[in-house]
Amino acid sequence: MKDGGRKQGALSPCAACKLLRRRCALDCIFAPYFPADESHKFASVHKVFGASNVNKLLQELPEHQRSDAVSSMVYEANARVRDPVYGCVGAISSLQQQINSLQTELAVAQAEVVHMRMRQFTPNSDTSNVDMVADQSNIGESLWSC
Amino acid sequence: MKDGGRKQGALSPCAACKLLRRRCALDCIFAPYFPADESHKFASVHKVFGASNVNKLLQELPEHQRSDAVSSMVYEANARVRDPVYGCVGAISSLQQQINSLQTELAVAQAEVVHMRMRQFTPNSDTSNVDMVADQSNIGESLWSC
Repeated sequence: MKDGGRKQGALSPCAACKLLRRRCALDCIFAPYFPADESHKFASVHKVFGASNVNKLLQELPEHQRSDAVSSMVYEANARVRDPVYGCVGAISSLQQQINSLQTELAVAQAEVVHMRMRQFTPNSDTSNVDMVADQSNIGESLWSC
Repeated sequence: MKDGGRKQGALSPCAACKLLRRRCALDCIFAPYFPADESHKFASVHKVFGASNVNKLLQELPEHQRSDAVSSMVYEANARVRDPVYGCVGAISSLQQQINSLQTELAVAQAEVVHMRMRQFTPNSDTSNVDMVADQSNIGESLWSC
């Protein structure tokens, strides 16, 4: 576990206790994840989730999962600060659109491979460029109409 | 704007005011988005973000953006309740992996199309099945080594 950047002996408060203006105890739940020199991390999660909710969530998790939980909360909080309307959900929506678009592109490319293989094994096939371009456009059309 | 499912005259409290055990005013900021019959929606956002933070966020947004903000917060809160360690960020990570995998598949398919086109226009090419399978495996290997 990290020591939150605190010097041994002198208890310099972690970023959370500093912002909340409270004494930073030796067993402070925030200290290992919010070192004094990264005050922006706690500021974001406090603004979005509230210190009390972050505290509760950390208390409910085993110690080995807390660091990941803090990282994901900081990510989520920063996204909500940047985009107060959609937050992280904006990113999810944009990634899903990207997936839809890639799936379409992949289907077109795979259909083209199948089509070209069939032509390759068909005797007396006309391999002119013009014909091939026309065929590709048909594949695209048939995919869109699915 | 929705009326939060409240009957005219009788002020039945919205889901937020019911949970917070407070009087639901006519201009309650939660009422349009947390109707009494959808108590689970407010319960989630209250647990994850806290009523006070949701209130602040809604106050800072123009009215026409509040409904989207509530929907995204409910989505995010439900994700955090389901997965307290990663929340929404788990979904983002999984979508990004899906994108990486689709991009690789697409690159392989597109390389195969290019390769087959080149073979198609090369005179005296050997189009036996065995040869083609070998070529595909080479394309795969060259892509992985990029």
